[in-house]
Amino acid sequence: MCGIAGTWNVDDSYNVLHDVLLALQHRGQQSTGVVINGFKSVKGEGLVHDVLTDSNFVEGKRGIGHVRYSTYGSINEIQPITAYTFKGTFSVAHNGNIIDADERRKYVMENGGIFSTTLDTELFVHYFSLAPYRDPKSSLQWTLSRIPAAYSLVMLHSSFIAAARDRYGIRPLFYGKFGDGYVIASEDSALSSIGCDDIREVEAGTIVFFSDNTPGPEIVTFSQKDSHFCSFEFVYFARPDSNFFGVSVHELRKRLGMKLYQEHKVIGDIVVGVPDSGFSGAMGYSHASGIAMDYGLIRNHYVGRSFIMPKDRQEIVRRKLAPMHSVIQGKEIILIDDSIVRGTTMKVIVDMVREAGAKKVYVGIHSPAVIGPCNYGLDTSRRNELIASENEEEALRELIGADGLFYLSTEGYKQVFEECGVNGICTGCFDLNYPI
Amino acid sequence: MCGIAGTWNVDDSYNVLHDVLLALQHRGQQSTGVVINGFKSVKGEGLVHDVLTDSNFVEGKRGIGHVRYSTYGSINEIQPITAYTFKGTFSVAHNGNIIDADERRKYVMENGGIFSTTLDTELFVHYFSLAPYRDPKSSLQWTLSRIPAAYSLVMLHSSFIAAARDRYGIRPLFYGKFGDGYVIASEDSALSSIGCDDIREVEAGTIVFFSDNTPGPEIVTFSQKDSHFCSFEFVYFARPDSNFFGVSVHELRKRLGMKLYQEHKVIGDIVVGVPDSGFSGAMGYSHASGIAMDYGLIRNHYVGRSFIMPKDRQEIVRRKLAPMHSVIQGKEIILIDDSIVRGTTMKVIVDMVREAGAKKVYVGIHSPAVIGPCNYGLDTSRRNELIASENEEEALRELIGADGLFYLSTEGYKQVFEECGVNGICTGCFDLNYPI
Amino acid sequence: MCGIAGTWNVDDSYNVLHDVLLALQHRGQQSTGVVINGFKSVKGEGLVHDVLTDSNFVEGKRGIGHVRYSTYGSINEIQPITAYTFKGTFSVAHNGNIIDADERRKYVMENGGIFSTTLDTELFVHYFSLAPYRDPKSSLQWTLSRIPAAYSLVMLHSSFIAAARDRYGIRPLFYGKFGDGYVIASEDSALSSIGCDDIREVEAGTIVFFSDNTPGPEIVTFSQKDSHFCSFEFVYFARPDSNFFGVSVHELRKRLGMKLYQEHKVIGDIVVGVPDSGFSGAMGYSHASGIAMDYGLIRNHYVGRSFIMPKDRQEIVRRKLAPMHSVIQGKEIILIDDSIVRGTTMKVIVDMVREAGAKKVYVGIHSPAVIGPCNYGLDTSRRNELIASENEEEALRELIGADGLFYLSTEGYKQVFEECGVNGICTGCFDLNYPI
Amino acid sequence: MCGIAGTWNVDDSYNVLHDVLLALQHRGQQSTGVVINGFKSVKGEGLVHDVLTDSNFVEGKRGIGHVRYSTYGSINEIQPITAYTFKGTFSVAHNGNIIDADERRKYVMENGGIFSTTLDTELFVHYFSLAPYRDPKSSLQWTLSRIPAAYSLVMLHSSFIAAARDRYGIRPLFYGKFGDGYVIASEDSALSSIGCDDIREVEAGTIVFFSDNTPGPEIVTFSQKDSHFCSFEFVYFARPDSNFFGVSVHELRKRLGMKLYQEHKVIGDIVVGVPDSGFSGAMGYSHASGIAMDYGLIRNHYVGRSFIMPKDRQEIVRRKLAPMHSVIQGKEIILIDDSIVRGTTMKVIVDMVREAGAKKVYVGIHSPAVIGPCNYGLDTSRRNELIASENEEEALRELIGADGLFYLSTEGYKQVFEECGVNGICTGCFDLNYPI
Repeated sequence: MCGIAGTWNVDDSYNVLHDVLLALQHRGQQSTGVVINGFKSVKGEGLVHDVLTDSNFVEGKRGIGHVRYSTYGSINEIQPITAYTFKGTFSVAHNGNIIDADERRKYVMENGGIFSTTLDTELFVHYFSLAPYRDPKSSLQWTLSRIPAAYSLVMLHSSFIAAARDRYGIRPLFYGKFGDGYVIASEDSALSSIGCDDIREVEAGTIVFFSDNTPGPEIVTFSQKDSHFCSFEFVYFARPDSNFFGVSVHELRKRLGMKLYQEHKVIGDIVVGVPDSGFSGAMGYSHASGIAMDYGLIRNHYVGRSFIMPKDRQEIVRRKLAPMHSVIQGKEIILIDDSIVRGTTMKVIVDMVREAGAKKVYVGIHSPAVIGPCNYGLDTSRRNELIASENEEEALRELIGADGLFYLSTEGYKQVFEECGVNGICTGCFDLNYPI
Repeated sequence: MCGIAGTWNVDDSYNVLHDVLLALQHRGQQSTGVVINGFKSVKGEGLVHDVLTDSNFVEGKRGIGHVRYSTYGSINEIQPITAYTFKGTFSVAHNGNIIDADERRKYVMENGGIFSTTLDTELFVHYFSLAPYRDPKSSLQWTLSRIPAAYSLVMLHSSFIAAARDRYGIRPLFYGKFGDGYVIASEDSALSSIGCDDIREVEAGTIVFFSDNTPGPEIVTFSQKDSHFCSFEFVYFARPDSNFFGVSVHELRKRLGMKLYQEHKVIGDIVVGVPDSGFSGAMGYSHASGIAMDYGLIRNHYVGRSFIMPKDRQEIVRRKLAPMHSVIQGKEIILIDDSIVRGTTMKVIVDMVREAGAKKVYVGIHSPAVIGPCNYGLDTSRRNELIASENEEEALRELIGADGLFYLSTEGYKQVFEECGVNGICTGCFDLNYPI
Repeated sequence: MCGIAGTWNVDDSYNVLHDVLLALQHRGQQSTGVVINGFKSVKGEGLVHDVLTDSNFVEGKRGIGHVRYSTYGSINEIQPITAYTFKGTFSVAHNGNIIDADERRKYVMENGGIFSTTLDTELFVHYFSLAPYRDPKSSLQWTLSRIPAAYSLVMLHSSFIAAARDRYGIRPLFYGKFGDGYVIASEDSALSSIGCDDIREVEAGTIVFFSDNTPGPEIVTFSQKDSHFCSFEFVYFARPDSNFFGVSVHELRKRLGMKLYQEHKVIGDIVVGVPDSGFSGAMGYSHASGIAMDYGLIRNHYVGRSFIMPKDRQEIVRRKLAPMHSVIQGKEIILIDDSIVRGTTMKVIVDMVREAGAKKVYVGIHSPAVIGPCNYGLDTSRRNELIASENEEEALRELIGADGLFYLSTEGYKQVFEECGVNGICTGCFDLNYPI
Repeated sequence: MCGIAGTWNVDDSYNVLHDVLLALQHRGQQSTGVVINGFKSVKGEGLVHDVLTDSNFVEGKRGIGHVRYSTYGSINEIQPITAYTFKGTFSVAHNGNIIDADERRKYVMENGGIFSTTLDTELFVHYFSLAPYRDPKSSLQWTLSRIPAAYSLVMLHSSFIAAARDRYGIRPLFYGKFGDGYVIASEDSALSSIGCDDIREVEAGTIVFFSDNTPGPEIVTFSQKDSHFCSFEFVYFARPDSNFFGVSVHELRKRLGMKLYQEHKVIGDIVVGVPDSGFSGAMGYSHASGIAMDYGLIRNHYVGRSFIMPKDRQEIVRRKLAPMHSVIQGKEIILIDDSIVRGTTMKVIVDMVREAGAKKVYVGIHSPAVIGPCNYGLDTSRRNELIASENEEEALRELIGADGLFYLSTEGYKQVFEECGVNGICTGCFDLNYPI
């Protein structure tokens, strides 16, 4: 879970990277790093505005940046990473997971390779150096053709910037025109938010080079495209105002909500979205069913900073969400969420809604139950309620104490993507149908 | 615009005040202050979590606190303020505006009174000292009976804590049971959020004392009640999960949106609330009209921290809100907001919606047009589009570039409050009918 | 123990007060405060550069400031304090101790006076307000004539700045020309260090006014002078490059060291000053005796910030001072210090010198033994080895483990001051001869 | 110009490294870094206590650390650096300069080597990996035997800590017993200051290993010793309470001052050391000549933090040093310093002393004039007054405005070291006699 960004021929690239990474903050909150041309880096644990402060400003017209969900305790372990080689100096940052990173790393080390971090990112550096070309661009092509998946990547070389996606296109990547230059980002909404024009997707299996000698972006295909975009980017990971393949995330979530109603036809008095992840799906459910949507739960924005220590996880949820008695009292409530991260959390929510006077509480999830892990960079360990059979679904319903629990079927799920014109998605965690 | 809080017989009162003030942060972001028993104060400019840090912790079981919208540049000017007198030492903080503060201050000074701040709050101190009683409680009663409005107030004396509201009850104040003690706050949602039970309103014209010698709260009436609660607290100032007179803020806003539809019957394809202030009203409009509500504008949460400096105010609004093309494209949009703060802001919003492909843009405001100032502690100078006639309303519609602009009538507005069972509100800024 | 400062008609007074207070930092390290014209205050716990940061900058051409040895836990308790009265608004800061402050405060309170702090400084405010004059300058004169001692004071009024010393002149105060304006400071070295010219002492019993209508300083005598300057300012409190009555502090300490030799004629191989307070006196002892001075103890500047927690006070001293074996080895050492703050500290020093190979260790103190408290603003509680007889002196020698311990006699001490032309000093803590 | 440190089997190594690096702060103020076992690093620009804060604490019983005079703008460029290789993971930090680093680096890169920094330190990593041994200890020996000079080095490997000095022993390194473990530091005073026992020098051409399997330190010779210790470490770089070859730095400086008198016999009324670097030499000059030493210049400790911006370099010096009129007035002054860093600085000092009333001002330097650069890690670019002939010495005397300027001869300089028993020093910058 990461966000990446880049700039080419953009004044005060540091500031622009700051703003783009800020707009990608939901993709990673633990560490932040940028490298500006001349290979000056600014890195640190923490949020974008904690690390990329005014006083750390570095002058430069090109650069790359990264935000990350987790850090391994050391400042050296923060991307981008920089390497000095006989093919030039360069920095690289990526979003994703190199699948067989451990074996590849061991192999390189046994051949005398020296790593300066424990990040799988550093494999790109070694492959780049090992590539049987003098030319850095060819070396990068060779590198990416040798490492199949799963990454989106930005690279700052002394003579160019590159944005690339693996052949399966698992993680997203976009670029857009910004003044006389270009800006790269994991999501298009980050580009829109700073005023970019002509925003395009980096195609799976291609590198987009921005070079000194070439007027515009130069697109190079290093592998045949075999599209398997992570559908969870749509379901819960991306911002609602982002688009993939020209399809609005909010719109697709709404469609999932509609399909959920069509499959289950669960009826009640009020549809309530679990804040904020369930709002779009709840709206879809409401539109499809004609049942009014209302704010039955209000998020308390500051709870993460409270001083009174809640005794347990349940207590945290209770302080994070306020039930609206006037909305819930005496009603049959259909709670909609994108997925169930923890059954214990959903149990507290159901309890709260019941205590606020709900007659019935039904829980609808607008994606299928997760039954397998993700090897492509998503932390599914948080999705710890893996469900493999209907028995287990019933057990979960009992655990959370709902009057009903219903998921979208994998077929229905896939259908919505197809209807929206999104083909070639990865649904491995739902149906164990892993593309690689 | 302020929030106030207090604690009585509560362990680590500093931490509890932190959490309550955090929940009241929307009432004031410029300065924060607390005084804990023993009259140790922690104050500073900035947000609650910037000032009430872990390292500033002060031990104590009772205290009062304050957040404020504006500061006058000096740390001395931050409430609560403390005074040492022959009637004992005490600290005081209030929310509101003493109406004729300048004259009263001048009078006290001419009689030899020394002020240590420029805050009107300090008048309470002088009246308390001047009161013809030795007893501090009687002195406070006398003080409040001499200063008619408009304030809610908390006081920490060496022998008690007091929570009081002026006779008109213009600003809100609540208290609730917390363990073996009590917590006081401007809004009940702040008390719920930390887990208080048995939450009650401080009645207009009364003081609630929490004292060493008395088992529970002792309620003293210092003046006959003449209720004129600020209706703008309901409309836009309070949190949606707060309640006044037992009526939910969110629910009342929804009712205002419903009434707005009933008065104007403006029809379109989609109802869009302006984030976040317009959501409740938009939901009401949607429910009443049967027109679907959708998220046509998404708020960009981080924009306040961006580095690329927008050229002008318009640009700021554009970066703050993202229009959802998939929602808006080809539709007739009914935009709903609680009020118009600046016509220039609304103009940018209308422009954005139009650029995203709206066929028509109608703007509905679920409160009447503001035509007069507020003297009771609300900064209406921000509401700078005072409208006194229909001509001016048409001029404003042209300014914002909407296809239609419609307000709730003052009669409709009052009716909604009545229907909800809220009697005795102040509507001075809408109809110049000032209670005092 | 405090330092005070002021500026009149000085650009960026905030910056100049910062520099002057920095040069007075040795007089107080716990809290810092300034008030700039318009009565904007910046205050905080901590060192000058922690509180008076760039980002707190306040524009203005006049102001006053204060550094203090101790704070009573609350930001309100930091000087200068500001008052709004019918005689105008003003701020005041002082160095010293109002002798009967408690009684005076009680009296004022019983007459209805309200205090906003627990500082004795606030008495000046009340006397000023009570003074039977409309005119603020006359009111200040009246105030100071009613409060006999012991203070040096700066006051910022909307129409003037005042610098004043009590009739006994117990604490120092200076002013000097700075560009077209004036700067005030507790020590002249602070004024020299920023480049002031024409530096003069504020005379005991006078106020120096800097006013809008008067070209230069206007000197007003409010009481007959009865000089009793605190001789400890010379001995250990002031910077060595300061001067009082035109006499160099370093020079006078050297003379005390010389007199110490003349009185005791203790002979050894090397004279060693205890860093840094004993250096000047040791140099005098060396000059008078012809015994070479050397650096037998080196101060470790960073020890205050070390992380390895010393087990006890002794350990702290051991880490703070490094004994120079090459200097001490096999020698008879004469250790010179200005005074003995704690016998336990001196014991560790003697031990260290002995462990480093000294044959003999004699301890010479170039001031008399302290036998009484100070009521004029000096924290003699730290000088906790009060000695009242020769028996006790011998006991102390044994405690510290020295081969000899010798003090300067009170007569010798006074003589040195006289020889240097300094008349009218306070020696109350040595001979119980208190001036007031 | 750097300081290095290490710990072996020491509880809370982070804290101990903090304290040792603090005591070595004079060797580098720009950046600070430590690596604790498990290879967790804490690094940052700035002073030790800014970087190694309490909140950055890392648990561990062994580690290495580094302070550096300059940083190249990037957090990656801060030592120690860490490498992951098939010979294990390790971190390394060094003090010094690898003489032909650029060529060696180019060579390694051309053979496919990847560098992650621009530091010459990283060469140790590559040689270590290239070494024809599987065993890490043998690899380190091979590395150091291939890189002749000039470095002192600490290395943290998963199975040992190593402390090593190049064959010429140009930069210092010590280790001492600390509880059940060992601490390593560039200067012995840093070890004494935390209470180490049994402090020893790491011999030139040796590695001292501290390993899991060996009870005490294991000393391995990797090259024949050819001692050329940097004599400037004695003259101005090290702390006065440090010792090299058992000789006190302060004592040797005193001897240089004595020799300076013996060579020149310049007579005056008072010997004044330039604070603080000239104090020891001045004391020697005073002892040898019988002319009294006095504090004619007092250092203003806080000037680096002042806000009033001095117009130029001269002004900075003037604010940094206060001339003592009482000491200087009417006297012939012999100013003693260790070296002349900038003629312009010395000119201001001479001016100040003259303005304070000196009759004559003679400047004595207790080392020879610097006539050549240093290639072994000392920043002699700051010593920018290279003098190659007596004509140029006279020109410099005129520039600084002194009545006389006299240096110690190279012969006299060498003689002092010999007399003190220090053989095998480098004097390249004085006589172009470079050892390597």
